[in-house]
Amino acid sequence: MTIVSPLAPERLPELKPILGVRLATVACGIRYAGREDLMLAELAPGSAIAGVFTKSQTAGPPVLWCRDCLPGGKVRGVIVNSGNANVFTGRAGRDVVEQTAATAARLFGCDPKEIFISSTGVIGEPPPGQKIVEALPRMVPMLSPDAWEPAARAIMTTDTFAKVATATATIGGVGVRLNGFAKGSGMIAPDMATMLGYIFTDAALPAAVLQPLLAQAADRSFNCLTVDGDTSTSDTVLLCATQQSAHPVMADPADGRLEGFRQALYAVMIDLAQQIARDGEGAQKFVTIEVTGAETAQAARRIALTIGNSPLVKTALSAGDPNWGRIVMAVGRAGEKIDPDRLSISIGGIRITAEGGPVPGYDEGPVAEYMKGRNITIAVGVGTGRGSATVWTCDLTHSYIDINASYRS
Amino acid sequence: MTIVSPLAPERLPELKPILGVRLATVACGIRYAGREDLMLAELAPGSAIAGVFTKSQTAGPPVLWCRDCLPGGKVRGVIVNSGNANVFTGRAGRDVVEQTAATAARLFGCDPKEIFISSTGVIGEPPPGQKIVEALPRMVPMLSPDAWEPAARAIMTTDTFAKVATATATIGGVGVRLNGFAKGSGMIAPDMATMLGYIFTDAALPAAVLQPLLAQAADRSFNCLTVDGDTSTSDTVLLCATQQSAHPVMADPADGRLEGFRQALYAVMIDLAQQIARDGEGAQKFVTIEVTGAETAQAARRIALTIGNSPLVKTALSAGDPNWGRIVMAVGRAGEKIDPDRLSISIGGIRITAEGGPVPGYDEGPVAEYMKGRNITIAVGVGTGRGSATVWTCDLTHSYIDINASYRS
Repeated sequence: MTIVSPLAPERLPELKPILGVRLATVACGIRYAGREDLMLAELAPGSAIAGVFTKSQTAGPPVLWCRDCLPGGKVRGVIVNSGNANVFTGRAGRDVVEQTAATAARLFGCDPKEIFISSTGVIGEPPPGQKIVEALPRMVPMLSPDAWEPAARAIMTTDTFAKVATATATIGGVGVRLNGFAKGSGMIAPDMATMLGYIFTDAALPAAVLQPLLAQAADRSFNCLTVDGDTSTSDTVLLCATQQSAHPVMADPADGRLEGFRQALYAVMIDLAQQIARDGEGAQKFVTIEVTGAETAQAARRIALTIGNSPLVKTALSAGDPNWGRIVMAVGRAGEKIDPDRLSISIGGIRITAEGGPVPGYDEGPVAEYMKGRNITIAVGVGTGRGSATVWTCDLTHSYIDINASYRS
Repeated sequence: MTIVSPLAPERLPELKPILGVRLATVACGIRYAGREDLMLAELAPGSAIAGVFTKSQTAGPPVLWCRDCLPGGKVRGVIVNSGNANVFTGRAGRDVVEQTAATAARLFGCDPKEIFISSTGVIGEPPPGQKIVEALPRMVPMLSPDAWEPAARAIMTTDTFAKVATATATIGGVGVRLNGFAKGSGMIAPDMATMLGYIFTDAALPAAVLQPLLAQAADRSFNCLTVDGDTSTSDTVLLCATQQSAHPVMADPADGRLEGFRQALYAVMIDLAQQIARDGEGAQKFVTIEVTGAETAQAARRIALTIGNSPLVKTALSAGDPNWGRIVMAVGRAGEKIDPDRLSISIGGIRITAEGGPVPGYDEGPVAEYMKGRNITIAVGVGTGRGSATVWTCDLTHSYIDINASYRS
């Protein structure tokens, strides 16, 4: 009965298999009736992993487990359930993670620390350990190299569409492929807009190379995304590399031959991040905020996120109201140095302010017309340096309230 | 046609005159038809002033002017208009402030730097300098010691009720009185929820004593207030002391004999701050968030504000949904150190969490019943220290969207 976001991509891209990756999904009845809610990914022996996680102080047992396992740099399995976040579940929550990892490790003949686990859904409810542990053996014979879309669907909570992305690159002249899927930000039973993302590649790169590449890419993609400013307890992005490609070995993340791979990783992760904004709760408009001229890139991102998180800016966007005074307000409160007399604001490429006031003869008509569209770009120059950043978000509509103010039960 | 907030106080307190303060209001047609939009306060010669202002980087000319005048410590007039914020108005905005101050200074026979000015309303529109300058001479014969409620009404934008507060204290055995009024957070033509507050007293205290007292009180009152997290370009609180009381002279803000005055100042400012939360855009519930056990008072306030600004918490409040997982989320993302295993959450005095999970046998029923009420208290202990803070806010409802997503024109 979910209405698909009007901002959803028109079609899913085709995701070709990645050598060394197989996927399976089942419905194990955690919360949602009649849909798959558990995803298992099997990685070939020797696969390497990198990960980035929520900075929340109340991160749940799955995130704590993944952080513990990450220094090993090895992965054989990734398990994700939807419907229950396994956060703030006390000792029981930690037990479930350990039992899940032990079960999968037996099935794959590996160390439990090579099993990575994520959970998304309601906080503080008893974790469905038994259901997961019983489902895993059934899933092994179902593992398939083609189940990308089912995998993307199984990890959804109240997302209105599955989010997948793919890219290819060459490393030292040899082709590699990247497939990714993610979930985030739609909710029917309002709980937590956890952002989860999984990227798989056949590249033969060690964890020590993958980790800095993933961290950089997360900084330019998922970390530039906001729907409502509420950081989840469970945000997780994993990058798994199956080592199946025959490209030259390289151990230095700064190796110039990795540039194509780096760009492909950016492309996949930015695509997924934008899809999450496009599926923001109640979203009717996809909004890109470009800030330039800040003291640093970090300052630029902070200003862009302050604009993107401002409820006053977001409600104006939903109304198609070119209320640029609210952008001035948000820039002013971001806590970064700006030069008000050099502050330039453009919407849809139309310049609105200059020299500390509206441009002479400013005509709101064309901006109002532009703002009727589904895709809105706001460009802001703050006149103090060369730092720049781009952030993606959506508008704030009545549906956001409907989705989140309905009683859970 | 404005519907008064259901959280408004049942009646306005009576504000008695303060020796040395006279007030006048007029309708000068800045924006609102048929209501007063300009307030003039005259202070007796020798009156002292303290002020705190927005930290916004895009503060407007009135705030910049007040900051410039503040080191003088003297005040003869306070002028506030509603309907136009005089922010991002370029050279014209600065001219209007200077002309306004010069005109009032001529009328009162004082230095222009003894005239303090605030403006609230739309950003980036031509400031109504001529209207204000022409109105001021007409207002002088109207000045009255009793016009507190009209003054509070004249500075409203889309507030749904006038906000006044009063208290008395003794300094060295001699009685003094404090009257205050404030505006904030209601909007019909959605622009900027500027917070303005003005407190007047007959105390005989110099600016050097008033300023630290005001800064401390602002930290415990207006700085503990959030409606939507969007800091205005124009926030201003002024404390004017007419020196008419015959209490002993004191020059040290730490003088023990000031304790009663300090408490009365807190009482007036906390009362006004709570009234602003009670008039938050679309507010249906008044929410008090008490955080204890943080590393510092500042950390506690940051955690409390993160809870109070969370759209997920605020929508749950509007639904009366005891969705405490969202409080866990907000505490986790506040960026302050907490101990998840010692995190205690209570709503309406009912303990919900202990030892990293829900309390054994937790029954949601009584909490859901409590949350149907108009006044909600959330208490959170974070288990890392002795810092505490209290923050006031309101819920996030459809009316917030209606108020802010309607097109301005």
